[in-house]
Amino acid sequence: MAHIPLPDGLPGIRGPMAFRPETAKPLNELANILLHGPHSLTPGERELIATFVSAENECRFCQTVHGAIAAHHLGGDEALVQQVKADPEAAAISPKLKALLVIAGKTAESGKLVTAEDVARARREGATDLEIHDTVLIAAFFCLCNRYVDGLATWTPTDLDFYRQRAAIVAEKGYAAAAQTPGVPASQPAP
Amino acid sequence: MAHIPLPDGLPGIRGPMAFRPETAKPLNELANILLHGPHSLTPGERELIATFVSAENECRFCQTVHGAIAAHHLGGDEALVQQVKADPEAAAISPKLKALLVIAGKTAESGKLVTAEDVARARREGATDLEIHDTVLIAAFFCLCNRYVDGLATWTPTDLDFYRQRAAIVAEKGYAAAAQTPGVPASQPAP
Repeated sequence: MAHIPLPDGLPGIRGPMAFRPETAKPLNELANILLHGPHSLTPGERELIATFVSAENECRFCQTVHGAIAAHHLGGDEALVQQVKADPEAAAISPKLKALLVIAGKTAESGKLVTAEDVARARREGATDLEIHDTVLIAAFFCLCNRYVDGLATWTPTDLDFYRQRAAIVAEKGYAAAAQTPGVPASQPAP
Repeated sequence: MAHIPLPDGLPGIRGPMAFRPETAKPLNELANILLHGPHSLTPGERELIATFVSAENECRFCQTVHGAIAAHHLGGDEALVQQVKADPEAAAISPKLKALLVIAGKTAESGKLVTAEDVARARREGATDLEIHDTVLIAAFFCLCNRYVDGLATWTPTDLDFYRQRAAIVAEKGYAAAAQTPGVPASQPAP
């Protein structure tokens, strides 16, 4: 049960977002710019960064829904998402994304851990200043989201199909628009 | 030196915010709602939560500037801010704020650490659902800010008067407006 009364039937971050729409608005705007808007990193790459950080922070809801969105963008390749969470250096992703995931993982633990050498490696693999900036900010943003979701003990559905269905909506419409879209089928009971 | 080239003369979070104004906009909006807008918690109380979390995360810039803003709201009582950072249970603050700081401190470490008993204590001391929600979100937001500031190795001024001057501007104008206001006197050289 969540720590405060939240609207029925809204999982994870969507419960507190419905409870407090004033703060949900800038949170969704930020998510949309970082993950869904035009960018030199693909949506799949950005969602992998979000998924990896959420897994490092052991946030079940965030790593599952963003993993599903990443897989949706990557042609349904759920195995690749699992591989990135388990061992990004061994995953079938670009050397640039591997270098960015090192920066993201360290940022998630403490920003102070990111070294000039980590950044130089990302640059050698072709990362731009904006990509390095946004990697740090995506990682920092998911440190927010993971704590927001778990700190209020929100509902985490266990049915993976729930996340796949939601992923398709978010991947198509983006975050600001998806926030207006009910994600729980009428047949699915509230927790 | 920062990990990416940032505009000269802007300390802490303001460097990357100037580098990426698209993401600065929702970040400042969120800061303004959580810390500066109308609320049943005073601006001083909310800035103390931000300062406490930033101290727990050992982010020098954030704890110093938000500590200065908190002190500004609290009639200049810098000793109280230091006491809250060092030992909130012994500080001269309300029992409600002490209970909220427990929730904030646990959220900063991991949202999963917040217990039903932590929330029940806050309720016994008079905290509302919104105050509990916003405490978790302020703590989560500063986990973002602290990592954003340190993950890019931004400039942290050492002169405390710099923070006091900036605090007066933010305390008066709020975050969204202060973002448009130069905070570095023309006489102060860029790092």
